[in-house]
Amino acid sequence: MTKYAAALTKAHTDFLTDLFPGDGCLLSPEELAVFSIDASQEQAMPWAVVRPETREQVQAVLAWADRERMPIYGRARGTGRVGNAVPSLGGVVVSMLRMNRIIDVNASDFVAVAQPGVVTADLQAACAAKHLFYPPDPASVKMSTLGGNIATCAGGLKAVKYGVTRDWVLGIEAVLPGGTLLRMGGRSHKDVVGLDLKRLFAGSNGTLGLFTELTVKLIPLPEAATSVLVGFADMTSSMDGAKAVFQAGVLPAACEFMDGPTLQAIRMGDTIPVANSAQAALLFMVDGTPEGVDAEVGRLVAALQSANPVSVDVGSGAEAEALWDVRRSISPASFRLKPDKMAEDIAVPRGQVGVAVAAAHDIGREHGLQVLCFGHLGDGNIHVGIMFDRSIPSEVERAHAAKVAVFHMALKLGGTISGEHGTGLTKASFVHEQLTEEERQMMAGVRRVFDPHGIMNPGKGL
Amino acid sequence: MTKYAAALTKAHTDFLTDLFPGDGCLLSPEELAVFSIDASQEQAMPWAVVRPETREQVQAVLAWADRERMPIYGRARGTGRVGNAVPSLGGVVVSMLRMNRIIDVNASDFVAVAQPGVVTADLQAACAAKHLFYPPDPASVKMSTLGGNIATCAGGLKAVKYGVTRDWVLGIEAVLPGGTLLRMGGRSHKDVVGLDLKRLFAGSNGTLGLFTELTVKLIPLPEAATSVLVGFADMTSSMDGAKAVFQAGVLPAACEFMDGPTLQAIRMGDTIPVANSAQAALLFMVDGTPEGVDAEVGRLVAALQSANPVSVDVGSGAEAEALWDVRRSISPASFRLKPDKMAEDIAVPRGQVGVAVAAAHDIGREHGLQVLCFGHLGDGNIHVGIMFDRSIPSEVERAHAAKVAVFHMALKLGGTISGEHGTGLTKASFVHEQLTEEERQMMAGVRRVFDPHGIMNPGKGL
Repeated sequence: MTKYAAALTKAHTDFLTDLFPGDGCLLSPEELAVFSIDASQEQAMPWAVVRPETREQVQAVLAWADRERMPIYGRARGTGRVGNAVPSLGGVVVSMLRMNRIIDVNASDFVAVAQPGVVTADLQAACAAKHLFYPPDPASVKMSTLGGNIATCAGGLKAVKYGVTRDWVLGIEAVLPGGTLLRMGGRSHKDVVGLDLKRLFAGSNGTLGLFTELTVKLIPLPEAATSVLVGFADMTSSMDGAKAVFQAGVLPAACEFMDGPTLQAIRMGDTIPVANSAQAALLFMVDGTPEGVDAEVGRLVAALQSANPVSVDVGSGAEAEALWDVRRSISPASFRLKPDKMAEDIAVPRGQVGVAVAAAHDIGREHGLQVLCFGHLGDGNIHVGIMFDRSIPSEVERAHAAKVAVFHMALKLGGTISGEHGTGLTKASFVHEQLTEEERQMMAGVRRVFDPHGIMNPGKGL
Repeated sequence: MTKYAAALTKAHTDFLTDLFPGDGCLLSPEELAVFSIDASQEQAMPWAVVRPETREQVQAVLAWADRERMPIYGRARGTGRVGNAVPSLGGVVVSMLRMNRIIDVNASDFVAVAQPGVVTADLQAACAAKHLFYPPDPASVKMSTLGGNIATCAGGLKAVKYGVTRDWVLGIEAVLPGGTLLRMGGRSHKDVVGLDLKRLFAGSNGTLGLFTELTVKLIPLPEAATSVLVGFADMTSSMDGAKAVFQAGVLPAACEFMDGPTLQAIRMGDTIPVANSAQAALLFMVDGTPEGVDAEVGRLVAALQSANPVSVDVGSGAEAEALWDVRRSISPASFRLKPDKMAEDIAVPRGQVGVAVAAAHDIGREHGLQVLCFGHLGDGNIHVGIMFDRSIPSEVERAHAAKVAVFHMALKLGGTISGEHGTGLTKASFVHEQLTEEERQMMAGVRRVFDPHGIMNPGKGL
């Protein structure tokens, strides 16, 4: 086990303030507090925050940190849900937000090159202006960064058709502990020389190195998209409907589901374009050429009939936004049920989603808590919201027990405890229930190759 | 450096014949010779060949091999082009062809599970029977296996739309040196728990372990496909045509190109549906719903007009096959120019394909050899055929010099010395020109984590 630096010495702060002049280095508790949390409930104060503007600064700080056994936590917008960016063992947070340039959006090579701190939606907009498309689309896309998305292998709404962030990474330039600059991959869409280290860095959650430049693959921007919101009498019918759509040969760009409790929570405050009798809903998006989209939507709606939908609403443009508002309203609406939520993101084999949702409801009943399920049906990725009241100790206890039961249920169905959020701090103690001892040994061994002293994002349980 | 076993001892052969009774273990030179080569020009005799039927046999042989420091070469159909399956340091070839069961093709989970020795086209057919689609489509698909495809991260015709083999891998069960069975991933389409070891194993060319079971992602089978073969007056016009297609928002399932020398070689023996005046050609495939395909083909053909094509042929079904016969005839036709070929597969950033082809032609002229270029334009993946006569020593020398010049040209354009074949033995001495010392050190370190004694496919230059 590495013996980490116990605190920042005078020599340490001198080094950091020299390398990062002015507000490039933050040391006051007020400023540090901002960097002590992310979108999870976790918190831990860093000893310092540095904000590099160049790869040379990143190299210098990682050379120093490796020598000093200083824990290093890469961070961007802090939108992660599991505490991955929280400096749980103390040390230095490296904020990548000042390295936020879009370097190239290239309509000949079909690549974009950017620094890690660029907001993903800004990159997507720059691509769209050239009729190019970077598909990965996590819910946080307007706030989160390309670096954060690649570090966590962000998923999102469109993974059913377009895959996850990892699938779009062509090149990564990263700095390793010790300061080595490692360039992996590049602008070629195909490359099979050597082991695919860049795809190993994707999803490594800041445990292998810090990104300084990223190259992603682009495709032509689909010209048209149409969305379809469908209500069903029950969850089983909705699963049958989704199955019929896929069996009809339609590959939607998005395929979301909402269960009865989710619809109920939304209806407590909003009027929505789903029949009142609906106890489950599906929301599809189809994209492509206008003619292709029309044909696929026709086919999709026809396929759904076999599952007896109680309402079908089709829309493009502003009308589609109104349908997606239902999806976007889930998170705020859920707090109409209870003031607090444990928001998990299990994934199961796609055909098991109906079984998993029923099991999650059972778990809620057993623990006397309301559980709502929604998410990315096309990927089998279920957001399970366990609603509770933090001010009632027994509810906190029961919510935790329900969360554990949900994880066990997902694993029993051949699934995973995290489809897209990661494990970070909040699920650190469950990782061993999914991964075997052998897998974890190999992962630890791989980490040591890049980070022999274990300074990169330590304490996250892997 | 590992000191490998110098030969098979009596104890070794006793162990192997005991573990693999009957024709499960081959020892005679006549039988071994079959396993001494692959589709490259490389050859080296193994000391023994074993043919496991169970994962337990694979575990037992890798436990033994690790103890005995016995080089191990995983092998399937031997269709690789670079000598990756050739037992260059002696040792034991493990043929995976008896582990060839399709275990599950699941229309609910959208996954297929198979043993490594299944022929990929057989798996695709089993999927198609259930209206499911496994897209990776290397040229060898009717002969090569899923295990070989994943071990080499096979590319193919449809990568421009569907990505390469790696992108479809959800789960890998592999045996490590020492006999440990490692299960990575599974049937979930999304999973971000731990480092993504399964995608590291994809494309690792048998250097980390031997696959025993593979799980891949499926999508609905596209119902329709139409192909378009287009002739152009010159290479530049063809590149302009391809660019116009992508700018029109069309993402074809395949986007192939052929240069003038390629067309000339084909015309020496075949009548083809390309105008005689054409000195370059593009071959597109568009797939999807029938209506969507019609719309995209209309848009594609309209977009091509800006580049003044000299012939346009559109076909589906048997007519499409006639168009693809042109593409399929390239390899045999090339030998009308010269009896021998150095077949390289560089990739460059997509916008550089025209520049790279012109440079390859220049290299041919400089070395007094005919060079033909064709391949996967959509991925920037160029098959460069350097034609020569092995019986003329100066041509052999010049062909080798031209090959080196082609590699340097690809690297100078920001590309790779291999888009899909790998480096194996034939390009082993060029890997250091693409990968930095730091990258190679990290790759070697990662390999040692899984294979501390370096017994897995040694001698392949990485």
